[in-house]
Amino acid sequence: MRAHTEYLSFHTKKRRDLVHLTPMLEQILARAGIHEGFMLVSAMHITAGVFVNDDEPGLHEDIWKWLETLAPFRADYRHHQTGEDNGDAHLKSMLVHHEVIVPVTKGRLDLGTWQRVFYAEFDGQRYKRVIVKTLGE
Amino acid sequence: MRAHTEYLSFHTKKRRDLVHLTPMLEQILARAGIHEGFMLVSAMHITAGVFVNDDEPGLHEDIWKWLETLAPFRADYRHHQTGEDNGDAHLKSMLVHHEVIVPVTKGRLDLGTWQRVFYAEFDGQRYKRVIVKTLGE
Amino acid sequence: MRAHTEYLSFHTKKRRDLVHLTPMLEQILARAGIHEGFMLVSAMHITAGVFVNDDEPGLHEDIWKWLETLAPFRADYRHHQTGEDNGDAHLKSMLVHHEVIVPVTKGRLDLGTWQRVFYAEFDGQRYKRVIVKTLGE
Repeated sequence: MRAHTEYLSFHTKKRRDLVHLTPMLEQILARAGIHEGFMLVSAMHITAGVFVNDDEPGLHEDIWKWLETLAPFRADYRHHQTGEDNGDAHLKSMLVHHEVIVPVTKGRLDLGTWQRVFYAEFDGQRYKRVIVKTLGE
Repeated sequence: MRAHTEYLSFHTKKRRDLVHLTPMLEQILARAGIHEGFMLVSAMHITAGVFVNDDEPGLHEDIWKWLETLAPFRADYRHHQTGEDNGDAHLKSMLVHHEVIVPVTKGRLDLGTWQRVFYAEFDGQRYKRVIVKTLGE
Repeated sequence: MRAHTEYLSFHTKKRRDLVHLTPMLEQILARAGIHEGFMLVSAMHITAGVFVNDDEPGLHEDIWKWLETLAPFRADYRHHQTGEDNGDAHLKSMLVHHEVIVPVTKGRLDLGTWQRVFYAEFDGQRYKRVIVKTLGE
Protein backbone atom coordinates (compact mmCIF):
# COMPACT_ATOMS: atom_id res chain seq x y z
CA MET A 1 0.00 0.00 0.00
CA ARG A 2 1.21 3.48 -0.80
CA ALA A 3 0.04 6.95 0.14
CA HIS A 4 0.73 10.08 -1.88
CA THR A 5 -0.17 13.52 -0.52
CA GLU A 6 -0.18 16.90 -2.24
CA TYR A 7 -1.70 20.24 -1.34
CA LEU A 8 -3.26 22.64 -3.84
CA SER A 9 -3.39 26.39 -3.11
CA PHE A 10 -5.97 28.83 -4.38
CA HIS A 11 -6.32 32.58 -4.10
CA THR A 12 -9.46 33.45 -6.03
CA LYS A 13 -9.94 37.01 -7.21
CA LYS A 14 -13.64 36.88 -6.50
CA ARG A 15 -15.17 36.14 -3.14
CA ARG A 16 -17.22 33.29 -4.66
CA ASP A 17 -15.73 31.22 -7.43
CA LEU A 18 -15.39 27.74 -8.89
CA VAL A 19 -12.06 26.15 -9.82
CA HIS A 20 -12.05 23.11 -12.09
CA LEU A 21 -9.68 20.61 -10.44
CA THR A 22 -9.82 17.55 -12.72
CA PRO A 23 -6.73 18.34 -14.84
CA MET A 24 -4.68 19.03 -11.69
CA LEU A 25 -5.88 15.78 -10.14
CA GLU A 26 -4.83 13.83 -13.24
CA GLN A 27 -1.34 15.30 -12.96
CA ILE A 28 -1.17 14.43 -9.27
CA LEU A 29 -2.25 10.88 -10.01
CA ALA A 30 0.51 10.54 -12.60
CA ARG A 31 3.04 11.66 -9.99
CA ALA A 32 1.53 9.33 -7.37
CA GLY A 33 1.98 6.31 -9.62
CA ILE A 34 -0.96 4.59 -7.94
CA HIS A 35 -3.03 2.28 -10.14
CA GLU A 36 -5.81 1.08 -7.87
CA GLY A 37 -7.14 3.09 -4.97
CA PHE A 38 -9.00 6.13 -3.70
CA MET A 39 -8.13 9.80 -4.15
CA LEU A 40 -9.50 12.05 -1.42
CA VAL A 41 -9.96 15.67 -2.50
CA SER A 42 -10.80 17.72 0.57
CA ALA A 43 -10.98 21.45 1.25
CA MET A 44 -8.96 22.36 4.35
CA HIS A 45 -11.27 25.28 5.13
CA ILE A 46 -14.74 25.60 6.55
CA THR A 47 -15.90 28.15 4.00
CA ALA A 48 -15.20 26.13 0.85
CA GLY A 49 -16.44 22.94 -0.77
CA VAL A 50 -15.42 20.23 -3.21
CA PHE A 51 -18.01 18.59 -5.44
CA VAL A 52 -18.48 16.55 -8.59
CA ASN A 53 -20.75 17.78 -11.35
CA ASP A 54 -20.87 18.94 -14.96
CA ASP A 55 -18.44 21.50 -16.44
CA GLU A 56 -21.21 23.60 -17.96
CA PRO A 57 -21.26 27.39 -17.29
CA GLY A 58 -25.06 27.67 -17.35
CA LEU A 59 -25.33 24.95 -14.72
CA HIS A 60 -22.70 26.70 -12.62
CA GLU A 61 -24.85 29.84 -12.66
CA ASP A 62 -27.82 27.74 -11.55
CA ILE A 63 -25.74 26.25 -8.74
CA TRP A 64 -24.67 29.66 -7.41
CA LYS A 65 -28.24 30.98 -7.55
CA TRP A 66 -29.50 27.85 -5.82
CA LEU A 67 -26.87 28.01 -3.07
CA GLU A 68 -27.79 31.64 -2.47
CA THR A 69 -31.45 30.63 -2.07
CA LEU A 70 -30.77 27.81 0.39
CA ALA A 71 -27.91 29.40 2.34
CA PRO A 72 -28.23 33.14 1.73
CA PHE A 73 -25.78 35.89 2.56
CA ARG A 74 -27.33 37.71 5.49
CA ALA A 75 -26.23 40.25 8.06
CA ASP A 76 -27.83 38.68 11.10
CA TYR A 77 -26.03 35.36 11.54
CA ARG A 78 -24.96 34.78 15.13
CA HIS A 79 -21.51 33.85 13.82
CA HIS A 80 -21.07 37.50 12.79
CA GLN A 81 -20.85 38.55 16.45
CA THR A 82 -17.26 37.21 16.25
CA GLY A 83 -16.49 39.95 13.71
CA GLU A 84 -16.86 37.68 10.67
CA ASP A 85 -19.31 38.29 7.83
CA ASN A 86 -19.11 34.84 6.23
CA GLY A 87 -21.88 32.91 7.99
CA ASP A 88 -23.40 32.03 4.63
CA ALA A 89 -20.06 30.57 3.47
CA HIS A 90 -20.07 28.08 6.37
CA LEU A 91 -23.61 26.96 5.53
CA LYS A 92 -22.86 26.73 1.80
CA SER A 93 -19.84 24.57 2.68
CA MET A 94 -22.07 22.22 4.70
CA LEU A 95 -24.59 22.02 1.84
CA VAL A 96 -22.04 21.27 -0.88
CA HIS A 97 -19.83 19.18 1.41
CA HIS A 98 -16.11 19.77 1.73
CA GLU A 99 -14.73 16.61 0.13
CA VAL A 100 -15.12 13.84 -2.41
CA ILE A 101 -13.46 10.49 -2.98
CA VAL A 102 -12.51 9.77 -6.58
CA PRO A 103 -11.93 6.10 -7.41
CA VAL A 104 -8.67 5.25 -9.20
CA THR A 105 -8.77 2.26 -11.58
CA LYS A 106 -5.99 1.08 -13.89
CA GLY A 107 -4.05 4.25 -13.20
CA ARG A 108 -6.89 6.64 -14.11
CA LEU A 109 -9.49 8.69 -12.28
CA ASP A 110 -12.53 6.44 -12.69
CA LEU A 111 -15.08 9.19 -13.29
CA GLY A 112 -18.20 9.00 -15.45
CA THR A 113 -18.24 10.72 -18.86
CA TRP A 114 -19.52 14.05 -17.55
CA GLN A 115 -18.16 14.00 -14.03
CA ARG A 116 -15.68 16.73 -13.18
CA VAL A 117 -14.31 17.78 -9.80
CA PHE A 118 -14.69 21.40 -8.64
CA TYR A 119 -13.39 23.46 -5.78
CA ALA A 120 -16.09 25.88 -4.62
CA GLU A 121 -14.81 29.00 -2.92
CA PHE A 122 -17.38 30.73 -0.71
CA ASP A 123 -15.11 33.25 1.02
CA GLY A 124 -12.04 33.81 -1.13
CA GLN A 125 -9.64 36.59 -1.96
CA ARG A 126 -7.07 34.92 0.33
CA TYR A 127 -5.02 31.72 0.32
CA LYS A 128 -6.94 28.51 0.75
CA ARG A 129 -5.75 24.90 0.52
CA VAL A 130 -7.08 21.58 -0.70
CA ILE A 131 -5.50 18.28 0.31
CA VAL A 132 -5.30 15.58 -2.36
CA LYS A 133 -4.41 12.27 -0.77
CA THR A 134 -4.26 9.07 -2.79
CA LEU A 135 -4.19 5.67 -1.11
CA GLY A 136 -3.69 2.44 -3.00
CA GLU A 137 -1.08 0.48 -4.86
CA MET B 1 -3.81 -4.49 0.03
CA ARG B 2 -6.35 -5.48 -2.56
CA ALA B 3 -8.78 -3.56 -4.72
CA HIS B 4 -11.97 -5.00 -6.20
CA THR B 5 -14.03 -3.00 -8.70
CA GLU B 6 -17.49 -3.68 -10.11
CA TYR B 7 -19.97 -1.53 -11.98
CA LEU B 8 -23.73 -1.69 -11.50
CA SER B 9 -26.10 -0.63 -14.31
CA PHE B 10 -29.57 0.80 -13.92
CA HIS B 11 -32.27 1.71 -16.39
CA THR B 12 -35.19 2.93 -14.29
CA LYS B 13 -38.64 2.97 -15.84
CA LYS B 14 -39.53 6.20 -14.09
CA ARG B 15 -37.62 9.44 -14.44
CA ARG B 16 -37.20 9.62 -10.65
CA ASP B 17 -36.71 6.44 -8.66
CA LEU B 18 -34.90 4.79 -5.78
CA VAL B 19 -33.03 1.49 -6.07
CA HIS B 20 -32.10 -0.38 -2.89
CA LEU B 21 -28.45 -1.40 -3.32
CA THR B 22 -27.57 -3.15 -0.05
CA PRO B 23 -28.21 -6.76 -1.20
CA MET B 24 -26.15 -6.15 -4.37
CA LEU B 25 -23.33 -4.67 -2.29
CA GLU B 26 -23.31 -7.72 -0.01
CA GLN B 27 -22.91 -9.96 -3.05
CA ILE B 28 -20.09 -7.81 -4.40
CA LEU B 29 -18.34 -7.93 -1.03
CA ALA B 30 -18.54 -11.74 -1.04
CA ARG B 31 -16.91 -11.79 -4.48
CA ALA B 32 -14.28 -9.24 -3.39
CA GLY B 33 -13.21 -11.43 -0.48
CA ILE B 34 -12.08 -8.34 1.44
CA HIS B 35 -12.43 -8.52 5.22
CA GLU B 36 -11.29 -5.10 6.42
CA GLY B 37 -11.58 -1.96 4.35
CA PHE B 38 -13.78 0.62 2.67
CA MET B 39 -16.37 0.14 -0.04
CA LEU B 40 -16.96 3.23 -2.17
CA VAL B 41 -20.40 3.33 -3.82
CA SER B 42 -20.43 6.21 -6.26
CA ALA B 43 -22.83 7.25 -9.03
CA MET B 44 -20.97 7.86 -12.28
CA HIS B 45 -23.52 10.47 -13.37
CA ILE B 46 -24.23 14.04 -12.40
CA THR B 47 -27.98 13.58 -12.21
CA ALA B 48 -28.06 10.76 -9.66
CA GLY B 49 -27.11 10.23 -6.03
CA VAL B 50 -26.18 7.55 -3.55
CA PHE B 51 -27.22 7.83 0.08
CA VAL B 52 -27.72 5.88 3.30
CA ASN B 53 -31.05 5.96 5.07
CA ASP B 54 -34.01 3.85 6.15
CA ASP B 55 -35.81 1.39 3.86
CA GLU B 56 -39.26 2.75 4.70
CA PRO B 57 -41.65 3.69 1.86
CA GLY B 58 -43.31 6.54 3.77
CA LEU B 59 -39.92 8.12 4.42
CA HIS B 60 -39.01 7.70 0.76
CA GLU B 61 -42.12 9.70 -0.17
CA ASP B 62 -41.07 12.38 2.32
CA ILE B 63 -37.58 12.45 0.78
CA TRP B 64 -38.92 12.95 -2.76
CA LYS B 65 -41.28 15.70 -1.64
CA TRP B 66 -38.49 17.37 0.29
CA LEU B 67 -36.04 17.19 -2.63
CA GLU B 68 -38.68 18.74 -4.87
CA THR B 69 -39.09 21.62 -2.39
CA LEU B 70 -35.37 22.34 -2.08
CA ALA B 71 -34.32 21.66 -5.70
CA PRO B 72 -37.53 21.99 -7.74
CA PHE B 73 -38.13 21.04 -11.34
CA ARG B 74 -38.35 24.35 -13.18
CA ALA B 75 -38.33 25.52 -16.78
CA ASP B 76 -36.02 28.48 -16.36
CA TYR B 77 -32.68 26.99 -15.32
CA ARG B 78 -29.80 28.44 -17.32
CA HIS B 79 -28.59 24.88 -17.91
CA HIS B 80 -31.67 24.36 -20.10
CA GLN B 81 -30.26 26.69 -22.74
CA THR B 82 -28.06 23.72 -23.69
CA GLY B 83 -31.22 21.83 -24.70
CA GLU B 84 -31.45 19.85 -21.44
CA ASP B 85 -34.43 19.93 -19.09
CA ASN B 86 -32.77 18.29 -16.09
CA GLY B 87 -31.38 21.27 -14.16
CA ASP B 88 -33.24 20.11 -11.05
CA ALA B 89 -31.60 16.68 -11.31
CA HIS B 90 -28.12 18.24 -11.07
CA LEU B 91 -29.11 20.20 -7.97
CA LYS B 92 -30.80 17.19 -6.36
CA SER B 93 -27.60 15.23 -7.00
CA MET B 94 -25.57 17.90 -5.20
CA LEU B 95 -28.01 17.91 -2.28
CA VAL B 96 -28.07 14.14 -1.80
CA HIS B 97 -24.41 13.71 -2.73
CA HIS B 98 -23.24 11.20 -5.32
CA GLU B 99 -21.34 8.73 -3.16
CA VAL B 100 -20.94 7.02 0.18
CA ILE B 101 -18.20 4.99 1.83
CA VAL B 102 -19.38 1.85 3.59
CA PRO B 103 -16.97 0.42 6.16
CA VAL B 104 -16.16 -3.30 5.85
CA THR B 105 -15.38 -5.14 9.09
CA LYS B 106 -14.81 -8.88 9.52
CA GLY B 107 -16.00 -9.48 5.98
CA ARG B 108 -19.32 -7.65 6.39
CA LEU B 109 -20.75 -4.26 5.51
CA ASP B 110 -20.47 -2.53 8.88
CA LEU B 111 -23.77 -0.65 8.73
CA GLY B 112 -26.05 0.27 11.64
CA THR B 113 -29.25 -1.71 12.21
CA TRP B 114 -31.41 0.52 10.01
CA GLN B 115 -28.85 1.79 7.54
CA ARG B 116 -29.44 0.82 3.92
CA VAL B 117 -27.74 2.12 0.78
CA PHE B 118 -29.86 3.62 -2.02
CA TYR B 119 -29.24 4.77 -5.55
CA ALA B 120 -31.34 7.84 -6.28
CA GLU B 121 -32.16 8.39 -9.93
CA PHE B 122 -33.12 11.97 -10.80
CA ASP B 123 -33.09 11.70 -14.60
CA GLY B 124 -33.59 8.09 -15.58
CA GLN B 125 -35.22 6.09 -18.35
CA ARG B 126 -31.73 5.45 -19.75
CA TYR B 127 -28.62 3.50 -18.72
CA LYS B 128 -26.76 4.81 -15.73
CA ARG B 129 -23.81 3.31 -13.85
CA VAL B 130 -22.59 3.08 -10.26
CA ILE B 131 -19.01 2.14 -9.42
CA VAL B 132 -18.51 -0.08 -6.37
CA LYS B 133 -14.84 -0.13 -5.43
CA THR B 134 -13.62 -1.97 -2.34
CA LEU B 135 -10.15 -1.37 -0.93
CA GLY B 136 -8.68 -3.37 1.90
CA GLU B 137 -7.36 -6.79 2.73
CA MET C 1 -1.94 -2.18 5.14
CA ARG C 2 -3.66 -2.07 8.50
CA ALA C 3 -7.21 -1.42 9.60
CA HIS C 4 -8.20 -0.17 13.04
CA THR C 5 -11.86 -0.01 14.08
CA GLU C 6 -13.45 1.59 17.13
CA TYR C 7 -17.02 2.52 17.97
CA LEU C 8 -18.05 5.63 19.89
CA SER C 9 -21.31 5.71 21.88
CA PHE C 10 -23.42 8.75 22.62
CA HIS C 11 -26.52 9.27 24.71
CA THR C 12 -27.30 12.98 24.43
CA LYS C 13 -29.51 14.56 27.07
CA LYS C 14 -31.17 16.77 24.49
CA ARG C 15 -33.02 15.53 21.46
CA ARG C 16 -30.83 17.69 19.20
CA ASP C 17 -27.20 18.21 20.09
CA LEU C 18 -23.66 18.52 18.75
CA VAL C 19 -20.71 16.52 20.11
CA HIS C 20 -17.18 17.66 19.28
CA LEU C 21 -15.32 14.51 18.19
CA THR C 22 -11.83 15.76 17.25
CA PRO C 23 -10.11 15.03 20.60
CA MET C 24 -11.59 11.50 20.65
CA LEU C 25 -10.44 10.92 17.07
CA GLU C 26 -6.90 12.01 17.96
CA GLN C 27 -6.85 9.45 20.77
CA ILE C 28 -8.14 6.73 18.47
CA LEU C 29 -5.47 7.57 15.91
CA ALA C 30 -2.77 7.26 18.58
CA ARG C 31 -4.09 3.79 19.45
CA ALA C 32 -4.34 2.84 15.76
CA GLY C 33 -0.68 3.66 15.18
CA ILE C 34 -1.41 4.44 11.53
CA HIS C 35 0.76 7.14 9.94
CA GLU C 36 -0.62 7.49 6.43
CA GLY C 37 -4.21 6.76 5.52
CA PHE C 38 -7.87 7.65 5.81
CA MET C 39 -10.06 7.77 8.92
CA LEU C 40 -13.76 7.21 8.22
CA VAL C 41 -16.05 8.74 10.85
CA SER C 42 -19.57 7.54 10.16
CA ALA C 43 -22.81 7.68 12.14
CA MET C 44 -24.43 4.25 12.34
CA HIS C 45 -27.91 5.77 12.51
CA ILE C 46 -30.22 7.39 10.02
CA THR C 47 -31.18 10.27 12.28
CA ALA C 48 -27.68 11.61 12.95
CA GLY C 49 -24.88 13.21 10.97
CA VAL C 50 -21.13 13.78 11.03
CA PHE C 51 -19.65 16.95 9.59
CA VAL C 52 -16.57 19.16 9.58
CA ASN C 53 -16.85 22.82 10.44
CA ASP C 54 -15.78 25.48 12.92
CA ASP C 55 -15.99 25.04 16.71
CA GLU C 56 -17.79 28.35 17.26
CA PRO C 57 -20.98 28.42 19.36
CA GLY C 58 -22.59 31.27 17.37
CA LEU C 59 -22.09 29.34 14.14
CA HIS C 60 -23.56 26.24 15.76
CA GLU C 61 -26.70 28.23 16.58
CA ASP C 62 -26.83 29.38 12.96
CA ILE C 63 -26.47 25.78 11.77
CA TRP C 64 -29.35 24.54 13.94
CA LYS C 65 -31.62 27.40 12.82
CA TRP C 66 -30.68 26.75 9.19
CA LEU C 67 -31.32 23.00 9.44
CA GLU C 68 -34.72 23.73 10.97
CA THR C 69 -35.54 26.00 8.01
CA LEU C 70 -34.50 23.49 5.35
CA ALA C 71 -35.70 20.29 7.04
CA PRO C 72 -38.31 21.40 9.58
CA PHE C 73 -39.89 19.41 12.36
CA ARG C 74 -43.45 18.79 11.18
CA ALA C 75 -46.34 16.59 12.19
CA ASP C 76 -47.42 15.50 8.73
CA TYR C 77 -44.51 13.48 7.38
CA ARG C 78 -45.62 10.22 5.81
CA HIS C 79 -42.92 8.47 7.85
CA HIS C 80 -44.93 9.29 10.98
CA GLN C 81 -47.62 6.82 9.96
CA THR C 82 -45.18 4.16 11.24
CA GLY C 83 -45.57 5.67 14.74
CA GLU C 84 -42.33 7.68 14.57
CA ASP C 85 -42.16 11.45 14.96
CA ASN C 86 -38.62 11.95 13.66
CA GLY C 87 -39.16 12.54 9.94
CA ASP C 88 -37.24 15.79 10.17
CA ALA C 89 -34.26 13.97 11.73
CA HIS C 90 -33.97 11.71 8.66
CA LEU C 91 -34.00 14.71 6.33
CA LYS C 92 -31.51 16.64 8.47
CA SER C 93 -29.24 13.57 8.35
CA MET C 94 -29.42 13.55 4.55
CA LEU C 95 -28.64 17.27 4.41
CA VAL C 96 -25.65 17.16 6.74
CA HIS C 97 -24.50 13.75 5.49
CA HIS C 98 -23.72 10.90 7.86
CA GLU C 99 -19.96 10.57 7.41
CA VAL C 100 -16.65 12.21 6.67
CA ILE C 101 -13.20 10.97 5.71
CA VAL C 102 -10.34 12.59 7.59
CA PRO C 103 -6.92 12.27 5.94
CA VAL C 104 -4.09 11.00 8.17
CA THR C 105 -0.59 12.29 7.35
CA LYS C 106 2.60 11.66 9.34
CA GLY C 107 0.57 10.19 12.17
CA ARG C 108 -1.79 13.18 12.55
CA LEU C 109 -5.30 14.11 11.47
CA ASP C 110 -4.52 16.30 8.47
CA LEU C 111 -7.21 18.91 9.08
CA GLY C 112 -7.07 22.63 8.25
CA THR C 113 -6.50 25.15 11.05
CA TRP C 114 -10.18 25.62 11.82
CA GLN C 115 -11.57 22.26 10.82
CA ARG C 116 -13.16 20.23 13.59
CA VAL C 117 -15.27 17.08 13.37
CA PHE C 118 -18.76 17.03 14.92
CA TYR C 119 -21.39 14.42 15.58
CA ALA C 120 -24.84 15.92 15.02
CA GLU C 121 -27.64 14.24 16.92
CA PHE C 122 -31.10 14.83 15.47
CA ASP C 123 -33.09 12.33 17.55
CA GLY C 124 -31.19 11.61 20.74
CA GLN C 125 -31.94 10.76 24.36
CA ARG C 126 -30.97 7.15 23.57
CA TYR C 127 -27.79 5.25 22.69
CA LYS C 128 -26.34 5.96 19.28
CA ARG C 129 -23.05 4.79 17.75
CA VAL C 130 -20.39 6.17 15.43
CA ILE C 131 -17.87 3.92 13.70
CA VAL C 132 -14.32 5.23 13.39
CA LYS C 133 -12.37 3.10 10.96
CA THR C 134 -8.81 3.94 9.98
CA LEU C 135 -7.15 2.34 6.97
CA GLY C 136 -3.51 2.82 6.10
CA GLU C 137 -0.05 1.93 7.27
